[in-house]
Amino acid sequence: MFLHVQRMLNEIAPDEPDPAAANALQEGLGGQFGEMRTMMQYLFQSFNFRGPTGKPFRDLLYGIGTEEIGHVELIASTIAQLVDGSPRYQGNPSNLDEPGAGGATPLNIALSGGNIHHWLVGAQGALPVDAQGDPWTGKYVYDSGNLPLNLLYNLMLESTGRLQKCRLYEMTDNKTARSTIAYLIVRDQAHENSYAKALECLGVEWNKLLPIPKTNAEQFPEVKQLTDQGLQSKQYTFSLDQLSEAGRIIQGTSPSKDGTSMSMEQAPEGIPFPGIAVERPEEFGPGLDPDLMELVQATAEMEMQAESAPPQWGPANA
Amino acid sequence: MFLHVQRMLNEIAPDEPDPAAANALQEGLGGQFGEMRTMMQYLFQSFNFRGPTGKPFRDLLYGIGTEEIGHVELIASTIAQLVDGSPRYQGNPSNLDEPGAGGATPLNIALSGGNIHHWLVGAQGALPVDAQGDPWTGKYVYDSGNLPLNLLYNLMLESTGRLQKCRLYEMTDNKTARSTIAYLIVRDQAHENSYAKALECLGVEWNKLLPIPKTNAEQFPEVKQLTDQGLQSKQYTFSLDQLSEAGRIIQGTSPSKDGTSMSMEQAPEGIPFPGIAVERPEEFGPGLDPDLMELVQATAEMEMQAESAPPQWGPANA
Amino acid sequence: MFLHVQRMLNEIAPDEPDPAAANALQEGLGGQFGEMRTMMQYLFQSFNFRGPTGKPFRDLLYGIGTEEIGHVELIASTIAQLVDGSPRYQGNPSNLDEPGAGGATPLNIALSGGNIHHWLVGAQGALPVDAQGDPWTGKYVYDSGNLPLNLLYNLMLESTGRLQKCRLYEMTDNKTARSTIAYLIVRDQAHENSYAKALECLGVEWNKLLPIPKTNAEQFPEVKQLTDQGLQSKQYTFSLDQLSEAGRIIQGTSPSKDGTSMSMEQAPEGIPFPGIAVERPEEFGPGLDPDLMELVQATAEMEMQAESAPPQWGPANA
Amino acid sequence: MFLHVQRMLNEIAPDEPDPAAANALQEGLGGQFGEMRTMMQYLFQSFNFRGPTGKPFRDLLYGIGTEEIGHVELIASTIAQLVDGSPRYQGNPSNLDEPGAGGATPLNIALSGGNIHHWLVGAQGALPVDAQGDPWTGKYVYDSGNLPLNLLYNLMLESTGRLQKCRLYEMTDNKTARSTIAYLIVRDQAHENSYAKALECLGVEWNKLLPIPKTNAEQFPEVKQLTDQGLQSKQYTFSLDQLSEAGRIIQGTSPSKDGTSMSMEQAPEGIPFPGIAVERPEEFGPGLDPDLMELVQATAEMEMQAESAPPQWGPANA
Amino acid sequence: MFLHVQRMLNEIAPDEPDPAAANALQEGLGGQFGEMRTMMQYLFQSFNFRGPTGKPFRDLLYGIGTEEIGHVELIASTIAQLVDGSPRYQGNPSNLDEPGAGGATPLNIALSGGNIHHWLVGAQGALPVDAQGDPWTGKYVYDSGNLPLNLLYNLMLESTGRLQKCRLYEMTDNKTARSTIAYLIVRDQAHENSYAKALECLGVEWNKLLPIPKTNAEQFPEVKQLTDQGLQSKQYTFSLDQLSEAGRIIQGTSPSKDGTSMSMEQAPEGIPFPGIAVERPEEFGPGLDPDLMELVQATAEMEMQAESAPPQWGPANA
Amino acid sequence: MFLHVQRMLNEIAPDEPDPAAANALQEGLGGQFGEMRTMMQYLFQSFNFRGPTGKPFRDLLYGIGTEEIGHVELIASTIAQLVDGSPRYQGNPSNLDEPGAGGATPLNIALSGGNIHHWLVGAQGALPVDAQGDPWTGKYVYDSGNLPLNLLYNLMLESTGRLQKCRLYEMTDNKTARSTIAYLIVRDQAHENSYAKALECLGVEWNKLLPIPKTNAEQFPEVKQLTDQGLQSKQYTFSLDQLSEAGRIIQGTSPSKDGTSMSMEQAPEGIPFPGIAVERPEEFGPGLDPDLMELVQATAEMEMQAESAPPQWGPANA
Repeated sequence: MFLHVQRMLNEIAPDEPDPAAANALQEGLGGQFGEMRTMMQYLFQSFNFRGPTGKPFRDLLYGIGTEEIGHVELIASTIAQLVDGSPRYQGNPSNLDEPGAGGATPLNIALSGGNIHHWLVGAQGALPVDAQGDPWTGKYVYDSGNLPLNLLYNLMLESTGRLQKCRLYEMTDNKTARSTIAYLIVRDQAHENSYAKALECLGVEWNKLLPIPKTNAEQFPEVKQLTDQGLQSKQYTFSLDQLSEAGRIIQGTSPSKDGTSMSMEQAPEGIPFPGIAVERPEEFGPGLDPDLMELVQATAEMEMQAESAPPQWGPANA
Repeated sequence: MFLHVQRMLNEIAPDEPDPAAANALQEGLGGQFGEMRTMMQYLFQSFNFRGPTGKPFRDLLYGIGTEEIGHVELIASTIAQLVDGSPRYQGNPSNLDEPGAGGATPLNIALSGGNIHHWLVGAQGALPVDAQGDPWTGKYVYDSGNLPLNLLYNLMLESTGRLQKCRLYEMTDNKTARSTIAYLIVRDQAHENSYAKALECLGVEWNKLLPIPKTNAEQFPEVKQLTDQGLQSKQYTFSLDQLSEAGRIIQGTSPSKDGTSMSMEQAPEGIPFPGIAVERPEEFGPGLDPDLMELVQATAEMEMQAESAPPQWGPANA
Repeated sequence: MFLHVQRMLNEIAPDEPDPAAANALQEGLGGQFGEMRTMMQYLFQSFNFRGPTGKPFRDLLYGIGTEEIGHVELIASTIAQLVDGSPRYQGNPSNLDEPGAGGATPLNIALSGGNIHHWLVGAQGALPVDAQGDPWTGKYVYDSGNLPLNLLYNLMLESTGRLQKCRLYEMTDNKTARSTIAYLIVRDQAHENSYAKALECLGVEWNKLLPIPKTNAEQFPEVKQLTDQGLQSKQYTFSLDQLSEAGRIIQGTSPSKDGTSMSMEQAPEGIPFPGIAVERPEEFGPGLDPDLMELVQATAEMEMQAESAPPQWGPANA
Repeated sequence: MFLHVQRMLNEIAPDEPDPAAANALQEGLGGQFGEMRTMMQYLFQSFNFRGPTGKPFRDLLYGIGTEEIGHVELIASTIAQLVDGSPRYQGNPSNLDEPGAGGATPLNIALSGGNIHHWLVGAQGALPVDAQGDPWTGKYVYDSGNLPLNLLYNLMLESTGRLQKCRLYEMTDNKTARSTIAYLIVRDQAHENSYAKALECLGVEWNKLLPIPKTNAEQFPEVKQLTDQGLQSKQYTFSLDQLSEAGRIIQGTSPSKDGTSMSMEQAPEGIPFPGIAVERPEEFGPGLDPDLMELVQATAEMEMQAESAPPQWGPANA
Repeated sequence: MFLHVQRMLNEIAPDEPDPAAANALQEGLGGQFGEMRTMMQYLFQSFNFRGPTGKPFRDLLYGIGTEEIGHVELIASTIAQLVDGSPRYQGNPSNLDEPGAGGATPLNIALSGGNIHHWLVGAQGALPVDAQGDPWTGKYVYDSGNLPLNLLYNLMLESTGRLQKCRLYEMTDNKTARSTIAYLIVRDQAHENSYAKALECLGVEWNKLLPIPKTNAEQFPEVKQLTDQGLQSKQYTFSLDQLSEAGRIIQGTSPSKDGTSMSMEQAPEGIPFPGIAVERPEEFGPGLDPDLMELVQATAEMEMQAESAPPQWGPANA
Repeated sequence: MFLHVQRMLNEIAPDEPDPAAANALQEGLGGQFGEMRTMMQYLFQSFNFRGPTGKPFRDLLYGIGTEEIGHVELIASTIAQLVDGSPRYQGNPSNLDEPGAGGATPLNIALSGGNIHHWLVGAQGALPVDAQGDPWTGKYVYDSGNLPLNLLYNLMLESTGRLQKCRLYEMTDNKTARSTIAYLIVRDQAHENSYAKALECLGVEWNKLLPIPKTNAEQFPEVKQLTDQGLQSKQYTFSLDQLSEAGRIIQGTSPSKDGTSMSMEQAPEGIPFPGIAVERPEEFGPGLDPDLMELVQATAEMEMQAESAPPQWGPANA
């Protein structure tokens, strides 16, 4: 069972709308080596886990898989923020046939690059596709049922994800994009370290190979800020009860040989949710005319039952 | 940010392995109207939500979306349980060329129906595909950015999901399968009611139409047991903090006109996780030979750092 | 602009339900060389036609393309008839949990072969997929914009379609299936002849090659009955106005050298529509409970405005 | 059985070639909510229709499905017109290596945006793909076999189609594109009204919700011209015989509450076909060299047999 | 540039037709971890290779990639042999409507399992699809451009391929199938060893992990016969000139620690091609009627020009 | 069994990087009518060949299929050369956050057109996709098992491939691109001639139709240079032994009626391999840091075992 808090794993920096950067970031969301894939792959490996003595390995997979759902939330929200407002339409909402700034039609931007679906199918939001517009597919999920193979694949998967994110970093200097890219670079390295550690438990000695890729990502200032905090060597259980045993694996020196030690915590603090995005009349989104808005308002004024709910969840409360 | 507890949303009843039922259930997991789709659709609609006054609607989407992750966990675990042990191989693990019961080769069952990938690509576990073996695709996710359209689509989606699950119920009487099918039938109806309620807030009067489909599912005993508890009229926030406003929508009489009232709670109690599945040597899963097993054992005996973690998560603890 | 009459291009013979035959026939509907493909390919070649002097060629494409819509109707209706009633469920519609004949659950048949979607996603009807369950895709449509290449491709396409249908004929002796297979074999040959004739107009001499494949399909009695009527040498314009010039191409001896002459007519007579399929409670289809049925009945009793519509359409009436 | 007339459902306004607009319009042709999908969905729902008392509903589906074939023809022809001539190559047809206007190679335009397949795979014509170049797929077709669900889905489908077309309208002011977009906006609304009416027959009261989306499309002049004629409240049977009973459903006040009444007619008058597109030597289309052209000419001069065909089709003639 | 000899890499043992085994083997041909994938992946990594000092690594990739083309030939030929003759039709070739053995229609077998396309689309031959009938896709090919990552992926790929083939071995005891499965198990291990060796060159120490999976495949007699010959420790250049430097990598003790040493040779001897498959009239394959056969015969009797070609190819001859 | 030589079938001319041309060329590599498709189609037709008397036809298919592997190598290498260096990044490899020429981020080019995967997923190399980024799929492969149909399809396939390459020629004047395009135009025509010749053996008389398309490609200077050498009328066996009988078919006057005679040879001479591409630090490719480079160097200095391998392969050596 999964639960949610209205907190984001990392802060999304403010900057100008940038649909080209948004489109590139789609690879990190819905691409073959993106967050939807790592999330689904680790969750399926958790659901199908076999071998009772391997519980610490299953709990590790569950922990990283749960973190990845939050990564999907983070990168999708980043993409939405990058596309939102990109048409820069300032015209009269009640007369959309009137050209906007520059004399262009309100959604003219959609014709000139990136993914036209960002404006045509969605309403300036994220899509479950990659940077070429190809939809995410279940074919990406790898679960051979063989633990060493799964761990080897997961290590390769995180490394490739990090490689692509380092390339993404070099494609754009938009601050919104880079704040999330940098965070995911460091977390991918943390996951690479975790899987490498699990393979060390099975007898591999990495010597000079790790980390792969050798990007010296500390040269990227946003990355350096996070590695200085040792975020690449922390793993989280994201587990509300006391049952995760993943900490048995995640300890000792980092396989990346950067002088840090691996450690396990429950969850990061995160930051409060950003505000909800404004209306975009040129998208007919959310599409509430005055009549409907009045009905929504009536709902918002009702007494909220949930307010008397218990402050925290836990098996003890059940 | 999402968190996890090692509890299952509903109990998976014990019964014999049944790969044909497992394969049919794949539609409910990875099919066009299955749990992976509802999960992703509601999460994307949450991430991309637009219109600050509509917060109760966004929080409703977040709540149902989070529940659906748990549905994915429930149905995937059910499928894994149904496939696990299906070859009924009792031969000598160290001589897999020796025929098993009936003189058949150890994995002969894979050639005769269902999805051969259950034994060939996976190791008697769930796959992110539908009952025809087609992989889940991001093309399924609908998020038009227009709130009334999204709600209408979601209502149709839950109704179709329930229609398919009622058909699944009639395809098999395996108790493992039916326990999960029945639970999902009732929860789909709860979600249908929730979206119908949200549309009522926008002015629709359903009269005689709901519920769609009119399956009289109470004729199915496992379903009746749950509807007698009113589970079709409860919605959960699955929210750890006090911030969900979905309760402003989910109240009053049920749009399905079954005499119940809608209500909102934080989360169900769930049941403890079942044990981890045993080894299957004919699949080389998990594939730990004595040498590797010894290394795993060494890990399991280490001191677990996480044991001193705080008992519950909450922003107050941060 | 297209119009419709409630007449079927050929009679669908009655026989027992046969879902295995139905599934095989899906190749002829939604397969790479099936009717949806020929329909879409010829229509796109018509819409995109280039070269004013080639009007007879365009009109030929339009004529065959329009016929293919009727083929889609014919084969889809045949498949629906073959699947309909296949569960042979005679149980109590108001208690679907009660086993039917043989003690099996009402939809148990869905687990044992063919395409499970025939009962799970659809309600014992046709699907836009092939015999392996793969959905039809726009990638199948070939329109190079080069007329000789298009004609060569179309000839190959019809020949392959006929080859597959001859194989289908040998897979089943169900009369429902064979009546439609035989009709489509002969019409595919007619289209092969038409495209071969068009290529003769561009200078090819076929000599001994045609027809491809050389199936001696007259050995199949249902086919012989139709070739005896010369149906393999007739082409139709399916054009309501006087504007088709395809007759300039379709004349003279058949390229298949069977002693017949090609001829062009407006449209075949067809046969009246069969009755509408009955309810299937085990599918919740159409899913009208007594309340809804009453509402439908009320509609059926209203005065029908359309009854005073003009008996026939034509530009002269406009 | 289907028939054809060489008349277009609406006039395609002349304007400059505009491949970016053409590419955007592909969504309306081959996209998930485009005309190929509505056509196939309604036709499959018609072929598989179940429940004899529901004949007016089946006939409604047949009527709209047949209209959609004409929509496919209209929008494909519009796209072809928008792409045709876009390279603006004026060079010597017999020396294609000689640069054209601006010193660019003849097909240089293909490298700079939109869908390169418009020039490389096709010859400046329409493709069965969406605005991202993804091919149409049979997976789009929804037919649950449950009538209320089908109607609800169809209503949502038409509404989403209209939403996307309103966004398309705002992307371009090319008159060719807008003439077809405006027509389809109004017809989508007519279909939305028709399905909403059918659901009203099953007891839903729409109150303030319809139309969805609330685009106030009358602000678009081309749309206003058509709604002033009440085109959003007319439905057609497109039926040549007297057998359609859809008129029993389509009557009374419009569910969109715009003050109009719904009415049913046989078919619109349409307009004569535009001329056939000219040759494009840079595409080798149609690719008839002088030798082949002579052979085509010979065909065109033959006596056309079809000229003595009966002027109109009808069961009475049969 | 690639060349061919009419020799098969390993002997395909004779046995009865077995379409179920054939279908399972399709995973090894067209599946995500099959031979078409390894072939394409290594060839693309070769074509795109970057870094002049890494030539031995590129030459290793070229060598394995070229071997994989031969694996595609071997397994496709094995599948064709397993399907060929499966209908066991002994009826009159000139009267295919006459039932064959058991009173069944000639191709009745196609309706009962495996992949119907083996008889309907192909003519009892191999298809470029996996065991679920899904077509091979270019999405499978992994080439990150980062050498360590590519090597890690390739090691995982070969290991997964071997895991699946060990499972295939346990699914069937058909000798035709097992002869090819056993050979590919051993060659996959050879490739795993080669990539592990290449990673050792980059500093990894495998200790207890390899081989993955630990299948003790020597328990399979056909495998033992080949490992006794040390085939799991040999690599081939398949290079006709003296330019491959892969031997610099492939030497020393095997990373699988089975006591063997790695060695590099040019190419195995192989065995002469089997005879060409006989005609199957029930498939209309090859479809030469007496007239066409006579024309083919005339060709076969012509003087063959190629006979005076030089006996061997080599740059020296050029 | 297949072998390789480090020689390229044709010289790739030097010119500037040109990612737009590279992307267009992807159609010729991974498109529906590209080299991966012809290669796989002919190889599958060879593997599945049926009918012992038709050996010359099988050997023809094997010969062209083997040539196509070399075409894949040629066009992939051409694409890699066109993309390589396209970012024109001259910054400090150890500080990738420092802007390059023009102040742009190092991989900024990836955001502005073509296929972003060329820089993000691959490292400035070729991909197994078409010019729209769609992956190659096994669905493209046509093998009906009917020889005349296969030959007809292959003729059409080569003609369409050539049509697209003539269009590609007109899209770009980059010399690197045009050198390979021109070569493939001429070889496609050679293959068209070969299949047409094979069909002539079955009785077709092409008269005025061939070649299709009639592009007068001799107007393209790079093409003329090759046709002047008669390359369009030569076929190769690519066979190392004396067993190919394809020469029985490929002789006599060309079906394209250009005055040449068809002839059969073993293999072209080709040209030596170009050098290996340099490192691209902005892609982290190949990603060898000083430590790893040292290890690679150690490998390169080892004695190469293969040097004592026999100079040429041949059955006589076996």
